[in-house]
Formats: sequence, C-alpha cells, structure tokens
Amino acid sequence: MGPIVLHEYALSGNCYKIRLTAAHVGMPLARREYDILEGETRTAAFLREVNANGRIPVLQLGDDFLPESNAAAWYLADGSDLIPADRFERADMLRWLFWEQYNHEPNIATVRFWRTLVGEDNLSELQRAQLPAKVAAGEAALALMDAHLGRRAFFVLDRLTLADIVLYAYTHVAEEGGFDLRPYPHVRAWLARVAAQPGHVAITD
Amino acid sequence: MGPIVLHEYALSGNCYKIRLTAAHVGMPLARREYDILEGETRTAAFLREVNANGRIPVLQLGDDFLPESNAAAWYLADGSDLIPADRFERADMLRWLFWEQYNHEPNIATVRFWRTLVGEDNLSELQRAQLPAKVAAGEAALALMDAHLGRRAFFVLDRLTLADIVLYAYTHVAEEGGFDLRPYPHVRAWLARVAAQPGHVAITD
Repeated sequence: MGPIVLHEYALSGNCYKIRLTAAHVGMPLARREYDILEGETRTAAFLREVNANGRIPVLQLGDDFLPESNAAAWYLADGSDLIPADRFERADMLRWLFWEQYNHEPNIATVRFWRTLVGEDNLSELQRAQLPAKVAAGEAALALMDAHLGRRAFFVLDRLTLADIVLYAYTHVAEEGGFDLRPYPHVRAWLARVAAQPGHVAITD
Repeated sequence: MGPIVLHEYALSGNCYKIRLTAAHVGMPLARREYDILEGETRTAAFLREVNANGRIPVLQLGDDFLPESNAAAWYLADGSDLIPADRFERADMLRWLFWEQYNHEPNIATVRFWRTLVGEDNLSELQRAQLPAKVAAGEAALALMDAHLGRRAFFVLDRLTLADIVLYAYTHVAEEGGFDLRPYPHVRAWLARVAAQPGHVAITD
C-alpha cells in the first residue's frame, strides 16, 4: 500500500509524538506539511479526503486515514515494547494518554500555540480571557507529573512506554509557552532520560 | 482482590460509560458515590489515595487505582469483542475515544454540567464567556457524528464496540444541556440502536 504518510504541521507536538514513536519502532514515514495558520486543514478537500474534523496530525495507511495523535501513535506502537503486555499496565498507559489530551495538551500546547504562533496581541477576547486559567491548569499538570515522577523513572514501567513519548512531546517545549520548568526537577530529569533513549529524534529532525 | 470498585458520581456520563461497559462484559462493580459539587473528590485523602488529579471516575482494582474514564472502560473491555481484533480497527476505535475526550466531552458534557448542575446563574464570568463557543463546538461534534453515522450503523465496525459505548454516554443526555438532537437523524437512530443492544443498562440503573 506504499509508505505510511503523516499529514502534519511539523512543529506541532501532536505531530512530533507520532514521528518519535515511528523512530522508536523503526517505521519510516512519508511527511506532508500543512500550514495550519493559513487554514490548509480546513479546506473542503482536506475535510472530505483526510479528516472531517479539520485537524492534523492524520496518519494515512493506503486509503485509510487515522486522525487523533495518540491513536496514530498507538497504531505505530501496537505490537512493540512501547505498549505494556500486562492488562492493567496497558490500561494505565492509556490513562496517561487520555490525561495528556484532557489536562495537558489543551493547556500547555494551547498556551504555546497562542504565544509563539498566534501571538498574544492577536488573541481573541475569549482566548485572552482563558489564558490565565490555561496557564494555571498547565502548571497543575506539570506539578502532577513531577509528583508522579518523584517515585519512578518513567510513567508506567521502569522503562520507556508510549506514555513517556506522548507526554514528552509538549512538555519538552513547554518553556516556549512561558512555562518555567525549574520548579519541576523530576520532570526535567525525566525529559533528559527520554531524550537519551536509543532511537530518539528531535522535534526539528 | 475483592470486587472491582467504581469511585463515581452516578449521573456523570464518564462514570456511566464504565458501568455500561461492565454490563456488556458481565463484570459486576461495587460503587462508591462522591458529591462532586461538595468537593468530595478534592479532599486531601481523595487526592492521596484515589486520584491525584481530583476527579472521578476512578476504577479500583485491589490496591491499584485507574483514573480516566476511557482507560477504565478499556480495561474492562480488554479481551472482549468490544475492542476490535484488527490493528487498524483497534486504533480507529481509540481514535473515537480520544476524539470524545477532546472534542465532545469538554463541550457537550461541560455545557450539560453547567446548565443542569451548576446552574447558568451560578457560572463564573469566564464560564459564561466560554458558553457560546462550547455550544457551537458541541453542535459541530454532533454534526460530525451524524455525517459519520450516515454511512454506517456503528462507529467502527458493523456492530457495537467500545467507541459506541463511550460516545453514547454523553450524547444520549445532550438534550439535558440544551442541545437539540432533531437535526441529527443518524445520531438519533444510532442512539436507539445502542440502547437496544442486549446487556444495555440506563444511566439511572
């Protein structure tokens, strides 16, 4: 069916987590870039052919399209050591993936997006009103991670799993959104640990 | 290890989806209720012993605690027909679970919560400012579901999977949040189809 294609915006952490997963499992990806600020994922053709939800990343497997970053990362990791074999540990790993999309990404990633790509001066009134709450929720997410990592080296097992890859993606660029990581020493040690894994690639690779 | 315990607030769709999954796989659950409006999931004991994230539902398996509704539902469904055996279909099912937590629940569930439990008069200024955008995003989620269901009977396979259970939970009570389901005939037909499945239980059961 040809190479797997990642429809992406390369600087998005949601896209990077898929490339990082692919690197760890040794799966080459073809890449197709969209300018999200120019609305290239909201065109009629994109909505019809790639993702009716108008978002990247989307993983394309032949004629099949798989939206949602953590589902795409799961697809690539399925059958590898990145997904725990034990039933509870597998569900516990998924717990962190859902937590990332509910408590981490809408705060840490959105604040980074608003501040670095949209620009604070260009925010809508509603976005500006939401900013303090999103910053506070992002700080709470980092604090929860730090407390969890104070008792273990990785999120679920004593080695890298998909939970670490998914959480690494936006945490390692949180400072671009103005989040100060200095109060979170366990997070910083874990970031270094993840980056030192064999097979690691950078968001700019 | 004794019975599996669901720490919950029974009228929450996130808690109901776990009970509905348990009913379909024939797993009895013990239930422990918390008054979320009285802050019972934010006490020091709850944060320390049940979930550092201060939220229900949490599934307790002996000494292990599993937060995040879709991870808990996955745990119960793991090994059953509710999770597709095919690799792509399994990831595609997870796609809908992540979409539910990112695009559906923060809009449809939050608006229902604000309007029926908190009360519009009691919303904070920020919540009130967010309400129109959340209503619009909830409508968009229902429209996306309706278009998808126009071409198939269930979300992923030609039979019930965990994706249907998870999406049913808040969709079937969307009208409590003021969402009008009349413009979404495929969603309404699918709701009836899910409710007619053997093993179905109601949110009030």
